[in-house]
Amino acid sequence: MVITSLDNEKVKKYRKLKKRKYREEYGEFIVEGMHLVLEAFKSGIIVELIMEENSAIPLPCPYVYVTREIIEKVSDLDTPTDIMALCKKLPDRDLIGNKFLILDEVQDPGNLGTILRSAKAFDIDTVILSENTVDLYNPKVVRATQGMLFHLNVISRKIAPILEILKNKEIPIYGSSVDYGIDVCELEKKDREKYALIVGNEGNGIRSTTLEKCDKRLYIKMNERVESLNVAVATSILLYELDK
Amino acid sequence: MVITSLDNEKVKKYRKLKKRKYREEYGEFIVEGMHLVLEAFKSGIIVELIMEENSAIPLPCPYVYVTREIIEKVSDLDTPTDIMALCKKLPDRDLIGNKFLILDEVQDPGNLGTILRSAKAFDIDTVILSENTVDLYNPKVVRATQGMLFHLNVISRKIAPILEILKNKEIPIYGSSVDYGIDVCELEKKDREKYALIVGNEGNGIRSTTLEKCDKRLYIKMNERVESLNVAVATSILLYELDK
Repeated sequence: MVITSLDNEKVKKYRKLKKRKYREEYGEFIVEGMHLVLEAFKSGIIVELIMEENSAIPLPCPYVYVTREIIEKVSDLDTPTDIMALCKKLPDRDLIGNKFLILDEVQDPGNLGTILRSAKAFDIDTVILSENTVDLYNPKVVRATQGMLFHLNVISRKIAPILEILKNKEIPIYGSSVDYGIDVCELEKKDREKYALIVGNEGNGIRSTTLEKCDKRLYIKMNERVESLNVAVATSILLYELDK
Repeated sequence: MVITSLDNEKVKKYRKLKKRKYREEYGEFIVEGMHLVLEAFKSGIIVELIMEENSAIPLPCPYVYVTREIIEKVSDLDTPTDIMALCKKLPDRDLIGNKFLILDEVQDPGNLGTILRSAKAFDIDTVILSENTVDLYNPKVVRATQGMLFHLNVISRKIAPILEILKNKEIPIYGSSVDYGIDVCELEKKDREKYALIVGNEGNGIRSTTLEKCDKRLYIKMNERVESLNVAVATSILLYELDK
């Protein structure tokens, strides 16, 4: 059977999931395109595939067929593909491992997604998103992670209590800086074994109340005519260097 | 005097400049917001300021006052500021210096802008944009460079003849790679003094005809479950490492 009506209850729900409020209410979100659907499948979070009528079902999951019109209304893309999946959000786990990345109010979905992709590449164990950070399940974030989101432990928490816990675990806390501190490439090997790196938002950097809790500030040496790098780039360079 | 009509010839031209075709025809483009206008002013490329009526003129330049409605129609932003500037394109110069970055068909404006900001940060002398690369004067590119565009030598050329010239100058040519070659952090000091780094596009990487011309392939060591990094991140890490 093919769903043809925009008034169908399933279709109404899919469309609601474009908004953060409903993603939080239902605990679900939508991914688009074969690559992301496959990554979601490997993580066992698919509720159902949403397929354009007449397309082949590529994975052993529940599915619904819908018309092209519905695909276009549900999709976040200018040119939607013929496959989407309704997914359960990942379980909210705890602080795992000994390499942490803390994002303090990062606003741009593309930046958050790109940072998560780099966090996986450079072996971060847990990413902590502060209050007021862009939603992890925003479609642009999910796309920019290229599916790496599903292979990372990402949790949403207030920063202050997290820093207390990390201090009790004797994890050194580093803050990214544009102007002073230690050149990250001069950090000793022993200081790269466990850490929590805090990165601030696009406009203002790290909040001062958070900054006070940092054991060290790390900067990236660069041409002095450049005030700063893009936040996803700066974070990725710091993670790359810490992972050496 | 304040321009109030959308049919005014100046206003018509400003709006045309949203399209690459007209930016090329007129050799002009528009920047928005005080930060970018100031960077354009320092580079001496401002033709005239486009100001919302009643706002103070901050720089000694020719200016026109327009209504808020016109600002909103000319702007590329969701929430436009009260200052824009019509600018002349930067002069198309030649291959300068001994550190080159070649972008082969990079498509996303945010990625191009971010890469240019990093290129300035890590002391690239000349950036070469291949045929089919996104337009340097696309408003999203200009914004993402944070004005660094005006302090860089960026030229648009076909890649094949550029590589011939660089080979004649004995500049070693490096291609970015996701899977083989030399770990960039193991590159010897002498191999970081002059080079041309080629970076491919988001989906396909470097074209094979270009790859054949590379003296070395450079990769970034990372978690093997991650296929690749965002192209702006990968390029920035390579430039950061080469600049050491």
